[in-house]
Amino acid sequence: MSTEQRREQLVQLGLDVFGHHAYDEVSVEQLARQAGASAGLLYHYFPSKKAYYLAVMRVAVDQIYSATTAPPNTAAEDALRLGVDAYLAHAAAHPMGFLTAHRGALAIDPDVQRLSTRAQQRQADRILILLGLPRDRTTAAHAAVVGWTAMVREATANWLLTAHPSRDAVSRLLVGALQGALAATH
Amino acid sequence: MSTEQRREQLVQLGLDVFGHHAYDEVSVEQLARQAGASAGLLYHYFPSKKAYYLAVMRVAVDQIYSATTAPPNTAAEDALRLGVDAYLAHAAAHPMGFLTAHRGALAIDPDVQRLSTRAQQRQADRILILLGLPRDRTTAAHAAVVGWTAMVREATANWLLTAHPSRDAVSRLLVGALQGALAATH
Repeated sequence: MSTEQRREQLVQLGLDVFGHHAYDEVSVEQLARQAGASAGLLYHYFPSKKAYYLAVMRVAVDQIYSATTAPPNTAAEDALRLGVDAYLAHAAAHPMGFLTAHRGALAIDPDVQRLSTRAQQRQADRILILLGLPRDRTTAAHAAVVGWTAMVREATANWLLTAHPSRDAVSRLLVGALQGALAATH
Repeated sequence: MSTEQRREQLVQLGLDVFGHHAYDEVSVEQLARQAGASAGLLYHYFPSKKAYYLAVMRVAVDQIYSATTAPPNTAAEDALRLGVDAYLAHAAAHPMGFLTAHRGALAIDPDVQRLSTRAQQRQADRILILLGLPRDRTTAAHAAVVGWTAMVREATANWLLTAHPSRDAVSRLLVGALQGALAATH
């Protein structure tokens, strides 16, 4: 296996490990063991636990973006609904990974925040394009979409923590919130 | 002046100082000077800069709650609109205080988060009561209201940082978001 392939494999294994374990509760030794490697090997590819986490988070962010992309020619409202539902499904499949990125100490790490903010901005831009709205950061529609992404994160985190209400109910209320916010900007 | 009165006066002055200065950029000496006291006196009342900040934040949270309370017999929709507008007005009058509590390093301090969460929960409960909905944490309406409070914070922080769109536009899109979310829970 090439160095690049081995690194990629460790990142893929990290998606599973960080997805299901609280960041602070898992040591580099455990990470290595669960990834079928030694701590030394892990340090060979990633200088620190945080560097490993960030490499994994970068891939997770791309996975979420892909998973929340509707097929071409999907109607805007359906695309939104599918996107929110795929987002919730991804969070449910990696609950601790979601909570690490959005709650707790690491969530305010500047590197983690930079990744989060970029992901949020990319999603917001895509929604504006989907809805045929300008990507102008001074508009009420932009404020609505960006503000709404925070509601999505909060509602998703609470849903993961409490298991209430149903995923379908969370999905519907989130779509309704964005529609209500945008309707109020006209 | 009694000890209690002097402490109260320092807290009131702190509302102004923390409201207009980034937490990390103001020293205890500056805080004391701006509050018309010595650093020694400040330490007499508050064991640390953070303790002073928390005392000030506790009062700010109560101020916001009062400011966002509509007069009795206000219709629910008007009360919501007035509440959101008063919230934005309070944030605009204490921009750095708002950003300290909700962005940056101190925002994840456990004591600060406890105060924020309690304030958020209190506002959510009030909104549920206002709308005649049960205060049941397993319902979609509860998830909608709590998720929405995160959108309010995010949209308010962005509005303070970018000055776009107008306060009225932010207020309208926030009210629209909650109405849209709740409509989707029926």
